[in-house]
Amino acid sequence: MPNGKMKWIRGGRIVTATEDFTGDILVRDEKIVAMGQDLKAMALGAEEVPAAGLLVFPGGIDAHTHLDLPFMGTSSSDDFQTGTIAAAAGGTTSIIDFAIQSQGKSMKDALNVWHEKAAGKAVIDYAFHMAVTDLNERTMTEIPGIIEGGITSFKCFMAYKGALMVDDGQLFRLMQMVKKLGGIVTLHAENAELIESLVPQFLKEGKTAPVYHELAHTAIGEGEATNRAISLSRAAGHPTYIVHLTCDEALHHVKDSLTRHRHPVFAETCPQYLLLDREYYERPGFEGAKWIMSPPLRTKGDQEVLWAALRDGFIQTIATDHCPFDFHTQKQMGKDNFAKIPNGAPGIENRMNLMYTYGVLQNRISLNRFVQILCTNPAKIFGMYPQKGTLAPGADADIVLFDPNVENTISVKTSKHRCDYSAFEGFKTKGAPVGVLGRGEWLFKDGKAVAPKGWGKFVKRARFSGTSEMVR
Amino acid sequence: MPNGKMKWIRGGRIVTATEDFTGDILVRDEKIVAMGQDLKAMALGAEEVPAAGLLVFPGGIDAHTHLDLPFMGTSSSDDFQTGTIAAAAGGTTSIIDFAIQSQGKSMKDALNVWHEKAAGKAVIDYAFHMAVTDLNERTMTEIPGIIEGGITSFKCFMAYKGALMVDDGQLFRLMQMVKKLGGIVTLHAENAELIESLVPQFLKEGKTAPVYHELAHTAIGEGEATNRAISLSRAAGHPTYIVHLTCDEALHHVKDSLTRHRHPVFAETCPQYLLLDREYYERPGFEGAKWIMSPPLRTKGDQEVLWAALRDGFIQTIATDHCPFDFHTQKQMGKDNFAKIPNGAPGIENRMNLMYTYGVLQNRISLNRFVQILCTNPAKIFGMYPQKGTLAPGADADIVLFDPNVENTISVKTSKHRCDYSAFEGFKTKGAPVGVLGRGEWLFKDGKAVAPKGWGKFVKRARFSGTSEMVR
Amino acid sequence: MPNGKMKWIRGGRIVTATEDFTGDILVRDEKIVAMGQDLKAMALGAEEVPAAGLLVFPGGIDAHTHLDLPFMGTSSSDDFQTGTIAAAAGGTTSIIDFAIQSQGKSMKDALNVWHEKAAGKAVIDYAFHMAVTDLNERTMTEIPGIIEGGITSFKCFMAYKGALMVDDGQLFRLMQMVKKLGGIVTLHAENAELIESLVPQFLKEGKTAPVYHELAHTAIGEGEATNRAISLSRAAGHPTYIVHLTCDEALHHVKDSLTRHRHPVFAETCPQYLLLDREYYERPGFEGAKWIMSPPLRTKGDQEVLWAALRDGFIQTIATDHCPFDFHTQKQMGKDNFAKIPNGAPGIENRMNLMYTYGVLQNRISLNRFVQILCTNPAKIFGMYPQKGTLAPGADADIVLFDPNVENTISVKTSKHRCDYSAFEGFKTKGAPVGVLGRGEWLFKDGKAVAPKGWGKFVKRARFSGTSEMVR
Amino acid sequence: MPNGKMKWIRGGRIVTATEDFTGDILVRDEKIVAMGQDLKAMALGAEEVPAAGLLVFPGGIDAHTHLDLPFMGTSSSDDFQTGTIAAAAGGTTSIIDFAIQSQGKSMKDALNVWHEKAAGKAVIDYAFHMAVTDLNERTMTEIPGIIEGGITSFKCFMAYKGALMVDDGQLFRLMQMVKKLGGIVTLHAENAELIESLVPQFLKEGKTAPVYHELAHTAIGEGEATNRAISLSRAAGHPTYIVHLTCDEALHHVKDSLTRHRHPVFAETCPQYLLLDREYYERPGFEGAKWIMSPPLRTKGDQEVLWAALRDGFIQTIATDHCPFDFHTQKQMGKDNFAKIPNGAPGIENRMNLMYTYGVLQNRISLNRFVQILCTNPAKIFGMYPQKGTLAPGADADIVLFDPNVENTISVKTSKHRCDYSAFEGFKTKGAPVGVLGRGEWLFKDGKAVAPKGWGKFVKRARFSGTSEMVR
Repeated sequence: MPNGKMKWIRGGRIVTATEDFTGDILVRDEKIVAMGQDLKAMALGAEEVPAAGLLVFPGGIDAHTHLDLPFMGTSSSDDFQTGTIAAAAGGTTSIIDFAIQSQGKSMKDALNVWHEKAAGKAVIDYAFHMAVTDLNERTMTEIPGIIEGGITSFKCFMAYKGALMVDDGQLFRLMQMVKKLGGIVTLHAENAELIESLVPQFLKEGKTAPVYHELAHTAIGEGEATNRAISLSRAAGHPTYIVHLTCDEALHHVKDSLTRHRHPVFAETCPQYLLLDREYYERPGFEGAKWIMSPPLRTKGDQEVLWAALRDGFIQTIATDHCPFDFHTQKQMGKDNFAKIPNGAPGIENRMNLMYTYGVLQNRISLNRFVQILCTNPAKIFGMYPQKGTLAPGADADIVLFDPNVENTISVKTSKHRCDYSAFEGFKTKGAPVGVLGRGEWLFKDGKAVAPKGWGKFVKRARFSGTSEMVR
Repeated sequence: MPNGKMKWIRGGRIVTATEDFTGDILVRDEKIVAMGQDLKAMALGAEEVPAAGLLVFPGGIDAHTHLDLPFMGTSSSDDFQTGTIAAAAGGTTSIIDFAIQSQGKSMKDALNVWHEKAAGKAVIDYAFHMAVTDLNERTMTEIPGIIEGGITSFKCFMAYKGALMVDDGQLFRLMQMVKKLGGIVTLHAENAELIESLVPQFLKEGKTAPVYHELAHTAIGEGEATNRAISLSRAAGHPTYIVHLTCDEALHHVKDSLTRHRHPVFAETCPQYLLLDREYYERPGFEGAKWIMSPPLRTKGDQEVLWAALRDGFIQTIATDHCPFDFHTQKQMGKDNFAKIPNGAPGIENRMNLMYTYGVLQNRISLNRFVQILCTNPAKIFGMYPQKGTLAPGADADIVLFDPNVENTISVKTSKHRCDYSAFEGFKTKGAPVGVLGRGEWLFKDGKAVAPKGWGKFVKRARFSGTSEMVR
Repeated sequence: MPNGKMKWIRGGRIVTATEDFTGDILVRDEKIVAMGQDLKAMALGAEEVPAAGLLVFPGGIDAHTHLDLPFMGTSSSDDFQTGTIAAAAGGTTSIIDFAIQSQGKSMKDALNVWHEKAAGKAVIDYAFHMAVTDLNERTMTEIPGIIEGGITSFKCFMAYKGALMVDDGQLFRLMQMVKKLGGIVTLHAENAELIESLVPQFLKEGKTAPVYHELAHTAIGEGEATNRAISLSRAAGHPTYIVHLTCDEALHHVKDSLTRHRHPVFAETCPQYLLLDREYYERPGFEGAKWIMSPPLRTKGDQEVLWAALRDGFIQTIATDHCPFDFHTQKQMGKDNFAKIPNGAPGIENRMNLMYTYGVLQNRISLNRFVQILCTNPAKIFGMYPQKGTLAPGADADIVLFDPNVENTISVKTSKHRCDYSAFEGFKTKGAPVGVLGRGEWLFKDGKAVAPKGWGKFVKRARFSGTSEMVR
Repeated sequence: MPNGKMKWIRGGRIVTATEDFTGDILVRDEKIVAMGQDLKAMALGAEEVPAAGLLVFPGGIDAHTHLDLPFMGTSSSDDFQTGTIAAAAGGTTSIIDFAIQSQGKSMKDALNVWHEKAAGKAVIDYAFHMAVTDLNERTMTEIPGIIEGGITSFKCFMAYKGALMVDDGQLFRLMQMVKKLGGIVTLHAENAELIESLVPQFLKEGKTAPVYHELAHTAIGEGEATNRAISLSRAAGHPTYIVHLTCDEALHHVKDSLTRHRHPVFAETCPQYLLLDREYYERPGFEGAKWIMSPPLRTKGDQEVLWAALRDGFIQTIATDHCPFDFHTQKQMGKDNFAKIPNGAPGIENRMNLMYTYGVLQNRISLNRFVQILCTNPAKIFGMYPQKGTLAPGADADIVLFDPNVENTISVKTSKHRCDYSAFEGFKTKGAPVGVLGRGEWLFKDGKAVAPKGWGKFVKRARFSGTSEMVR
């Protein structure tokens, strides 16, 4: 009788950030215990999982999601159940969502709220970044406890003035503090003031359509804020991490930090910035609203620059910034005013398929690099490694069985997320997860998410210790 | 009775380019067959190798050595036996030496000569780069056969005019050709003409001491040639690899290729450029001759730039450029004329110890990065992976057991190389190989090189397929 | 009888931004009317001014002074009389001072105040930059009138948060507005938040000495603000001008704007940043307070970078930022707290002598370049050309007769400014103005300022029309 | 009776590199003697030249022409008579042609030949660059004498291997030598080897059309050579000058030299690189041959980069590289092989008109900058200032009267050059010289070149003393 606690994954093509070989993986009690060419001698009683012809990857880690997020007067349409079901179906076995402090309240309050949102719902493991929106002497005293609790990354917004934004001084002092305690600050880098100047100018001129969102959120402004973030990071003597970087203007400063200043900095981008471009905003009617997000989609030229940066190591991670709002209801809030369109789009389900199809199969990145940026690097940067992010003895048995021959077309009709459209509707993909294990249990199998509601656990993350070479 | 063909390495801290876990490695018939937390069930009959408290690394690959090299009227003092014994003692289980075409002769002739030099002598595995010094329509026809024979990298000298140098046109056409066939061109990048102009000027002014070697081999000239190499590589649309890069001037162009042109290029440096500097040339008397090499030692500022580039991924490999000449005899040829000092210094034995002590222990690079640059990256770039360069099921069982607590002082007195001095005399090291396996056999154990003369085999290398992300 | 309205300057070596020839200048009714090799035929009745052996320059324009400035609870020690007397003695015939808006009040109010401060006192011509500290819908309506009134440049502070600082949005909207109207925004570029974070940290740690001023006002912070200023300027599509730029960090972004973005930007530096360095802050006791200014003195390395930038055209103007406070009284306000030391130092009298001695005579800049950066470029950038800034028919007869052989040592004892110390005490100079004409009248002669109090007139400046080539 | 030796140019708008005023110029005995608002009192007996409504410029200096040049088996179609007549008609009053050493012969021989070509023919003043093609110990001994003779600039070709090219060592040693003697090296910067590799590859593949000339003369190769030239210049510690720079790839290195290395370097471009692009090569049939020149026309993107560089000071001079070959005869030599098309095109007549129309009138450069780059900068860099290149007392009376309202269409039918086509056929121009004086004599008037054959004199040039600020 097979031992449910043991699984013997046989004969797959096992791919990690470094390796690529055909062999077996033996799983016991949530962990990988051995990898080898033929582990039959150790596999007595294990459930046998044939993997010949399949690629075997570490479970994906999506380090940027917004489930059940109250934002701009509404809430993102996926909660921790629907969102993590979609994630699992897409080969993602862990997410790092954002617990967002309310201005005037404590960080602990926010954490409590987010723990409640997730617990009992999530079907995959999850962790939180602490999104800091109100930093003062009192709230700063919370930080040691928050890090102690396994929340070792902090997110600040340089945009959304008056709502989420922190000022440069708060940002700098936060960097100084987490440096001592073993944390890292991550940043939404856009110049808030420039946006806040342009938006009313456009509205005053009657320019209310979605395309003006992009024109107000300039690449110049994103580049400026990226340089400012890096400057403060240099002044603090501690690396930082730029979330959802979209354009050459911003990337330039990331490169410059490494080449000219020899100061480490990390950067993340998202599939939408690699595959979609600003012309989507010019679609007839209000359809462009589907892709209203901040920062916005950029030019085709920026896409090429981002792909090269992924290949060459200047961008280390791919996340989705999954933040869905229904087009037919929520997005309509901005029908007459682009600035009222809830910012965000769905994508949690499509990360692995898109990056495999448009990255690996189009020779833009290698298979090893694919695993690095989707699995290993997020784990290493955010303190989840070696528990997660790779396939190695001792690691959590988060494993994706990926059939390279399955062909699909992305559509809202076949998507598991709870949102009335897909941001990638009509995109062809080749290769798809056909089985996903989380800590040795089946999360997704035969096209279905099979983990019980609430199976997912909070992941207490380790302190940030790294400098840039940990992702090289 | 233990099966000599099987080894069970138990309980070591296993470190690869990506992983770091405690466990076992099972070796059978020259190969690693399994890795896991406890492989006892599979290890029946295996020789047990206790590794608790030890670091377990892949065998090192030194991609730049010159054993038994005829040069400047003499020959490098180590042959393939003495040189590879020293290599093994230092944790290196494979080298890539240079088969150097003689002008007027074929590449095949050179390969035959080098195969003879190595076969029956080498105690570790070896491969060859083809050093091309005479490229014409006739010799170009040899290249497909050479690549077919597993020699997939080609070295050209932009220095040594009239002796080894090829011109830019030859270089470019070679790049074009190997692009089609799956090879890569590696380059010694110095502006020959600038050197050839300065040397006679110095000699004419009576400036004959070793320090003038460095003043003739300027950083400007190395930077210029590096940019030229990259320009030709861009024109050919194919990556290149810069050997023994020493300075910020040259590194700038490598960075620029990646950042501005998005054109992949690889770079190698050597421990001497990281740890020694140009002040060595100013030692009393003729002692500076010990460090006469091309390019020369640079400034302390350059060292800092190189260390950061190793950390941040702009330099991917560390080799030794081991090319020893006895100080008391061979180096004296240049007593009255620095230009007649044979170029080169010993170092094959010290790579792993020095990089561990001054890189890892001084927090300049992580343990994973240490393995990448000494083992995995050379294997990936030069077509030896997945056979070599990592610890994974299916790979050759080239394994280093490294005791992190051993303390040594480098000295010619305790060195295994055949040269009358050490370039690193007096350097303290912490951590040393205490056991080295090659394809599952003991090469070095209990302080002794134990492999029989000629044990090493020629490694037929795979074609170059990569772009830069394979080393990121 | 000589006609007081006419002057015939004979046989001097006339130097402009472009020319260098020996000849005569004929002045009539405040203007230059002719220049030639021998103007005797036109000079009937003119006062003859022999100039053989002398250099003849255009009158200097100091585009950055603070006379009678209320600041940090006190006022700068020179008023428009004493300050302009010192200026005239130093070869400066026009200044552009700053009319500083009080927060909560209108710009017009400030202009009225400054017109009153200057009128009836100044002994040389003067103009004003409008320093904007409170920009809102109401105050923005004043701008067309201010430009109409001949105040065509606007100064904003990115530092001095809560006092003088405007935010990025205000800055950007001001740039947009003056672009349409023909103005230019000039910027004090330092990251206010970084300073405001570091100052209390130092004070809390008991670090109250002058040297901590420099450590709080980092080069990183100046570089960051410079990039931010340029980014906003690029977003507005209009050039900007960086005042008192001090360091390589900031200069890099100025260069980058020109090279990479092809966006014109102007930069000014001051003699103190070229000749003094941060070691002055470490002088015994409280003496360092003499050089407390913002941004602070930097390193010797920065000096070299600034000199090269002056030579190569990346910095276009030299101003003094003359803002004196008495050491024995005013500066003592910060005896126990560096943050309370009034910011600023005297220098209005020394600009020409220092730049001639340490620039021209040390071959760092040519004589023509000397005239460009002290006279012509400020006039061209700030709309005073062709009335001022050069020697040409039709221009105001602002003329400096400069004896290249006079040797002096700068000392407070011989200075004409009203401040109890000199920032350049003990500096040797060679070359000095021996006669200075303003609009054809003697302002300085025989070592004495001879113009009557209040002789100086307000200069209504032309609109800004330029792009960068006007100063090349 | 008017004194032929005196001219009184009345009431024009006089524009120099710095000035712009309305007034008179008085000319006597070949020189300008006075400039002023009304010079009547000095103008007794002078020929009166009314200039109201006209622009008055210094005579243009074209620092790059090839008259009567033997090249590629034929000779450029203009000799010193026809070529300088065309120059005069276009507002150019001085040229610097190239005396080209024959390999195996002395420089003196070449100079003698070129003096003979020019003397008795040229109708404007002329000077020579010494084009060095064979540099060895013997020919180097000639250099002091050549400089003594007023030939203070040396041209080397990095292209045309086997014909004109010098190697890097020769180039470097020449730079070292002229540094001591007061000369400057100018460079045709293209990587010869890359061209020589691509040309036979194209021909072998049957790619014989003009467009392959451009594909063989890559921007990468021009960029590479430009960096090499600058590197050698840095090693020699002496500025250099890049002739006919065409593209961003090359310009980048010029900018980098100034920004990163703080090493001065000068650059020249030509109207054809600003106004024509590589699509001309794709014209039907063989017409593209008209624009075959080295380096070739580049992309529209490169044009924008060059215009900005002119404006911002990275390019200092405009020359024509006038080197005409008849299309119906000479150019046909390459009918079946682009590599046999004589390189060069006419342009000597169109420099001022084109730069005024497409530079000044399109607001790409100011009027002052126009004068700088066409007149003053060439004079300053090449030792002709203050004799030539400006309008100032003491300077040669080389003066252009330019009517800003004349409209023309460039056509071979109305051109004065001796070539059967125009490179700018059909280009509209606004503004044209209506009178040109050389040393006070009419060279061009009423649409006719009126100077007698052989009127032009050889200009002995001063030593090079400058660093980059002389052109800023």
